[in-house]
Amino acid sequence: MPAASPATLQAAQAAFADFTTGLAKGDWQPFLDRVSDDVAFWFPAGPCKGHNQGKAKLAAFLTAVPKVFAGGLTVAVVQITSSDTTVVFEVRSTGTMGGEPYENQAAIAFDIRDQQICAYREYLGVIFQLGH
Amino acid sequence: MPAASPATLQAAQAAFADFTTGLAKGDWQPFLDRVSDDVAFWFPAGPCKGHNQGKAKLAAFLTAVPKVFAGGLTVAVVQITSSDTTVVFEVRSTGTMGGEPYENQAAIAFDIRDQQICAYREYLGVIFQLGH
Repeated sequence: MPAASPATLQAAQAAFADFTTGLAKGDWQPFLDRVSDDVAFWFPAGPCKGHNQGKAKLAAFLTAVPKVFAGGLTVAVVQITSSDTTVVFEVRSTGTMGGEPYENQAAIAFDIRDQQICAYREYLGVIFQLGH
Repeated sequence: MPAASPATLQAAQAAFADFTTGLAKGDWQPFLDRVSDDVAFWFPAGPCKGHNQGKAKLAAFLTAVPKVFAGGLTVAVVQITSSDTTVVFEVRSTGTMGGEPYENQAAIAFDIRDQQICAYREYLGVIFQLGH
């Protein structure tokens, strides 16, 4: 299995930094600027559950995040793994959902083509609803 | 980020092969033989939701799988990524749950130490309940 090239890793990490800014502050344009027009994305739940395609659909999905997590989500990277085309970030995120403290683990995979994100897959880990 | 050594990748892939045999046939001993006594594991839902530790607890957890998925789960690997200590398998699994066809995407991370699995983390992707 070839390791990721430095350019692939750099593209993924720059995109992930902009992704975390989006989650924290709701400003998604820097992340979207790194995404291909035909981006494919998979999400485990909600209105975009399953397979989705296209930057416009991803933009609509991401801009709805602050409605779910008022005050934003803070993401800490726990592990990074990669292949020649894919970089996976295992993360912990904390925030507030429905007025209650929220903490989650997730794995977020970016596929990279020409230093753009051409696929984004999210997998949910342990969801702690700390208020319950 | 250093790539996984061939020995690390080989240990993870051999363990994953035994893991898929366990899911398909309910025989978990070959997988458990590759797991450290102090293994840590995280699962998103059910009685072992969250952080767990120890081979005995993992054995009890895994041997309950056939009760949930009668007939076993078939797993196909879609992507593999790795770092020097961790290998992540993105998979699709198919089977039957509660009498209904079941299909899922998941990300399964193994941490490797001395060619044993010392941590196992599972993240759930898109769960398709095909009967609904």
